[in-house]
Amino acid sequence: MPDAGRTGGLARVVPVNQRSHRWAPPPTSLMTDHYELTMLQAALHAGTAHRRSVFEVFARRLPAGRRYGVVAGTGRLLEGLESFCFGDEQLRFLADTGVVNRSTLDYLAGFRFTGSISGYAEGEAYFPSSPLLVVEGTFAEACVLETYFLSVLNYDSAVASAASRMVGAAAGRPCIEMGSRRAHEEAAVAAARAAVIGGFDSTSNLEAGHRYGIRTVGTAAHSFTLLHDSEEDAFRAQLESMGRDTTLLVDTYDVETAVRTAVALAGPELGGVRLDSGDLVTQAAWVRGLLDELGNRGTRITVTSDLDEYAIAALNAAPVDAFGVGTRVVTGSGAPTSSMVYKLVAREDSSGELRPVAKAARGKASVGGRKHALRRRDEKGTATHELVGIGGLPDDDGDDRPLMEDFVRDGELLDGWTGPAGVRRARERHAASVAELPRSARRLSEGDPVIPTVLGPEAPA
Amino acid sequence: MPDAGRTGGLARVVPVNQRSHRWAPPPTSLMTDHYELTMLQAALHAGTAHRRSVFEVFARRLPAGRRYGVVAGTGRLLEGLESFCFGDEQLRFLADTGVVNRSTLDYLAGFRFTGSISGYAEGEAYFPSSPLLVVEGTFAEACVLETYFLSVLNYDSAVASAASRMVGAAAGRPCIEMGSRRAHEEAAVAAARAAVIGGFDSTSNLEAGHRYGIRTVGTAAHSFTLLHDSEEDAFRAQLESMGRDTTLLVDTYDVETAVRTAVALAGPELGGVRLDSGDLVTQAAWVRGLLDELGNRGTRITVTSDLDEYAIAALNAAPVDAFGVGTRVVTGSGAPTSSMVYKLVAREDSSGELRPVAKAARGKASVGGRKHALRRRDEKGTATHELVGIGGLPDDDGDDRPLMEDFVRDGELLDGWTGPAGVRRARERHAASVAELPRSARRLSEGDPVIPTVLGPEAPA
Repeated sequence: MPDAGRTGGLARVVPVNQRSHRWAPPPTSLMTDHYELTMLQAALHAGTAHRRSVFEVFARRLPAGRRYGVVAGTGRLLEGLESFCFGDEQLRFLADTGVVNRSTLDYLAGFRFTGSISGYAEGEAYFPSSPLLVVEGTFAEACVLETYFLSVLNYDSAVASAASRMVGAAAGRPCIEMGSRRAHEEAAVAAARAAVIGGFDSTSNLEAGHRYGIRTVGTAAHSFTLLHDSEEDAFRAQLESMGRDTTLLVDTYDVETAVRTAVALAGPELGGVRLDSGDLVTQAAWVRGLLDELGNRGTRITVTSDLDEYAIAALNAAPVDAFGVGTRVVTGSGAPTSSMVYKLVAREDSSGELRPVAKAARGKASVGGRKHALRRRDEKGTATHELVGIGGLPDDDGDDRPLMEDFVRDGELLDGWTGPAGVRRARERHAASVAELPRSARRLSEGDPVIPTVLGPEAPA
Repeated sequence: MPDAGRTGGLARVVPVNQRSHRWAPPPTSLMTDHYELTMLQAALHAGTAHRRSVFEVFARRLPAGRRYGVVAGTGRLLEGLESFCFGDEQLRFLADTGVVNRSTLDYLAGFRFTGSISGYAEGEAYFPSSPLLVVEGTFAEACVLETYFLSVLNYDSAVASAASRMVGAAAGRPCIEMGSRRAHEEAAVAAARAAVIGGFDSTSNLEAGHRYGIRTVGTAAHSFTLLHDSEEDAFRAQLESMGRDTTLLVDTYDVETAVRTAVALAGPELGGVRLDSGDLVTQAAWVRGLLDELGNRGTRITVTSDLDEYAIAALNAAPVDAFGVGTRVVTGSGAPTSSMVYKLVAREDSSGELRPVAKAARGKASVGGRKHALRRRDEKGTATHELVGIGGLPDDDGDDRPLMEDFVRDGELLDGWTGPAGVRRARERHAASVAELPRSARRLSEGDPVIPTVLGPEAPA
């Protein structure tokens, strides 16, 4: 089994950027639904906008057949919260188009979130009804954040959840995120980040390297070979410029000719070859044989054609050293969004008391009251239940693991959740969280969530 | 049948912004794959980077069962091309991480696209092998744009293609894009834009209104009702603040009680009610009956629960005035990305002559040579074939429509494709393009592309 960290041959290694990152998101305040601001206007009018409120993000279900989900995007939404403000340009748009009235514009001009946000650490496994994010503030402050928070969590979690399954299927061999061209250009950056949180080794997306200090790698495209008068010219150019440890793409014309040319030019130090077409199982075995026969036992094989968790599992016995995954990881492998919702679960009434609230809408009923959560574990440390308490923490039996973390306290962002450090922390949390799940969590076949959620004040014995 | 333009009751109408928009995208140059820049480095080293090259974007196939696709994103990628440059921050990242060498950094510092771009107008219907974008320039200039261009086209076209089917199913009743919370926050803005190009009436996304002058609308969420001590308090607040022409959400508790309360408070001028749960077919008919009985014949019904083209078609006979579509439109209704690729089809050789090139990779072979396209039409103006000529324009039989438009000529962006004006133009092009297709294009059942593509110099008689 090759070393999971050993993908240097794909390209020169980009060390994780230790400097504080310089990137700041653009204003996020208009990345929201029209109704968030008109509800604010009506609540300001009614005098209810300043009622203390608790909103929660949760998913009623996992995507069909999935055993667990992975929370991602928390760090990103906290970064975006800092730029959730209404400057001259945003206010002018709202005024010119008449979305809201003068007094609402005045409120928005001074908008700053002064409440508190807690929830599951980024990277954590989650289950139906897990309270993933708890936003506490005035109705006005918490209401306007809904759309933006859900956008970030729904997309990033869809990618991290798919990535985690692929990493499980790869059984220790590195997965590389290469799907940028199959997702919106900004979503691609978030996808690279989420895939790495879900256990991917690296990404091809340079902006993800820039913003989050993620290692970026690359090989070459067919166009590079076609640009040159011969495949040999192309390989020579790449080897001379990038060094022998580079990875050559060998399926532009004939694979056997390409592999022989590559070895003739680079010798035994050739870093790797990439296969991007054909039957990868047969092809990888055949190319491995040829490389070994030519004396290139250390030359690695990367495969990259339409891979998902099932294709990766099918390559289990093939001599593949790294999986380059594109379309399927950035589109959530069949579940391109999570079904997370943002619901008001408690708010102050006219007497100033905080009261649980819930809607009754058919098939979409909600459970009122602020949630708290623990992961119940048996004496071996294996997870057995998701315990979600209403109005208070469920009883801890000693082996349980508390799941709620504080991200923002009275408007102050707490350290360690954002930027490159946040990504590293989320990646570690994810690895620990999945390691604690029953082994059947890794099954790719459709099934129920791997542990049941117990919602309510009673905890199982 | 209600008037398609008559959705004012959902919210105050935001007039299309006639001012030139002030929004400019952030630098897009690192929204690319690592290998684009290392291939550039190797080509600079080999002296081949300045060879004149032609790259083309096309799709080998439509998503399974689809009758046509819709090109979208062209205006956005042209906007982004203007900010595709390597400033101090981008160059510092590339230098610090060692992605490319000094001479490549020097080239990138002066990067500016000086070539030409042509292709299908945004909003145009497309088919397998349609040459959607033709990028002509040096290899260096055209290669580095690949990932960014594909990101934009693959996502935006997926959304516009899904939107167009939904609009067909809605048979004249307005569709409203409300899926922001189910897509990455920036993808959501692009999705709103693409949905409107595909025929949607409006969006809930404020940033799409800001950037592209798209009409934004909204109703209210369950949280707004729950915030108040009673549903009546909530409705009164909304009516007083937003006016009687607003749309009230009536399924937080009991629908009948809510409708009666709404009518009692607003009288016959109540703009609309929204249903977001339950069996919408039965519910819409029942609520229509109740509203009529209470004298509110002009009050509109908007439905919004998990709609896609099939659910919209199933509501064909129901008294619904507008469809609010979320998840399914922003995720491409089962096809969250298009399978468009960016391939080198011709390049200068060492003697300076432009030569067609193609790869042979199994299942991914490409056809060399620059493509040109016409839509063949019969004497009634109905499309019959997609004619794609290699190396020259296919013969025009007099009724054919040329499909290739110029977007950038020698580095100069041509007028009319970007900003709010570009969106309006694309929306008009889309309506005209779909109107010209055979009626079976609107079928929702799975099938082949509604017209065949003829690839090659010969045109059918």
